[in-house]
Amino acid sequence: MEKIIGVVGGVGPLAGLDLQQKIISQTVAGRDQDHLTVLSVSRPCAIPDRTEYLLGQVAENPATALAEQVQLLAQMRAQVVGIPCNTAHAPPIWDVLRAELARANCQIYLLHMIEEVGRFLGKHHPEIERVGILSTTGTYRAEVYPQVLAGLGFTAVTPTLLMQETLIHPAIYHPQHGIKSCGRVTERARQDLLAGVTALQAQGAQAIVLGCTEIPLALTEKQMDDTLLIDPTLILARALVREADGGKLRPYSTS
Amino acid sequence: MEKIIGVVGGVGPLAGLDLQQKIISQTVAGRDQDHLTVLSVSRPCAIPDRTEYLLGQVAENPATALAEQVQLLAQMRAQVVGIPCNTAHAPPIWDVLRAELARANCQIYLLHMIEEVGRFLGKHHPEIERVGILSTTGTYRAEVYPQVLAGLGFTAVTPTLLMQETLIHPAIYHPQHGIKSCGRVTERARQDLLAGVTALQAQGAQAIVLGCTEIPLALTEKQMDDTLLIDPTLILARALVREADGGKLRPYSTS
Repeated sequence: MEKIIGVVGGVGPLAGLDLQQKIISQTVAGRDQDHLTVLSVSRPCAIPDRTEYLLGQVAENPATALAEQVQLLAQMRAQVVGIPCNTAHAPPIWDVLRAELARANCQIYLLHMIEEVGRFLGKHHPEIERVGILSTTGTYRAEVYPQVLAGLGFTAVTPTLLMQETLIHPAIYHPQHGIKSCGRVTERARQDLLAGVTALQAQGAQAIVLGCTEIPLALTEKQMDDTLLIDPTLILARALVREADGGKLRPYSTS
Repeated sequence: MEKIIGVVGGVGPLAGLDLQQKIISQTVAGRDQDHLTVLSVSRPCAIPDRTEYLLGQVAENPATALAEQVQLLAQMRAQVVGIPCNTAHAPPIWDVLRAELARANCQIYLLHMIEEVGRFLGKHHPEIERVGILSTTGTYRAEVYPQVLAGLGFTAVTPTLLMQETLIHPAIYHPQHGIKSCGRVTERARQDLLAGVTALQAQGAQAIVLGCTEIPLALTEKQMDDTLLIDPTLILARALVREADGGKLRPYSTS
């Protein structure tokens, strides 16, 4: 029996849409009625910025608002839920979110996007050893990708702190040219992220995780030279389809 | 105080996403937290095809499943709701939907997409007299656009029945080249819809309503020659933002 999918949107709003779009694209369906049931809650005003919290710029933990939205999805009978925000998976947020759900006795199956990325790499690309990570500075400092990937036998490589703070994070957040502020991909943002790709390749990365939901908007290639570009939102979408009705999951292809 | 927007998705699934995307694009916002709260329910398996119902090919009125989804949105505290499916607004479906909501004492404010298109034309393009309609054969036979537009002083022009049945409807539904069946816009579908645009222009249409949510995927131009192309999903998105928080509605522009 098919399970109902829940999406915690609003972190940011376009990432919620991107996840819903990828759930559709990863489902085998011949007509409208074949698609899976998807419930989405996008309440961005309620959720403090995840990176600002991790950097100590806002006091309120976004975990509380995220837990409320997961519970709302549970009340609507969603059974398997994803949150398309890498930074929300940093332990100072994620662990509090899990604790709040446990306290509320919320039994919903909440997928962990970053563990799904690790599981995906282990299944489809076991030959890879070194995995580069592009992310916000919040995710960078929390070291969530390096820790999850190390547990699966991969070595994570990240940009230098200087590059992280002057090129990668600003490509997402800079008031003049950042993707979030502009609501679109600026040429400057793409160039700065490409510089990150080149640096990680020089550090031996055989695959690069686009570890902030804005980054795949700027780097839409599936591969650069011999380096795979990995989109965690796509992997989360595939994991949600797998849990909802594995028979409808489109076969994985790198082309 | 901002109202919560509800979207009845799944009719079809991509139309629900398109409406959510347009709600974001029509909102004035500088950061994630400025965007409006949007709840979406997409349960396509439960909703029979609207056109098949109007043409007598299925017995079950999709109104019942639509009413259930509107009520679920109401339980989640949505206050203003839209359904991004033109055919669902045909009276044999819409009137039953309204009656079911009244019987359930559901007080939610349900916008009528086609009345919103008429209101939009009256406000922004009062100089227009003749409005062409491209739609499914279900919407065509129900004459929902001609009736709503006539009440506002516009004259609707539609393709001949032969063109409707051999070119326009198949561009959406044909098993080999229809947009719904293929899940993308085929060259044949676009060419057949362009033939419809040319025919309506020859009948004096000064604007053409793309009256099925798949059609704007194939005709993305805002204008062809001197003819405006009108996207009802965009207009529904603007109406939802207006009702949720009018101060955040992006100014209308034809460019």
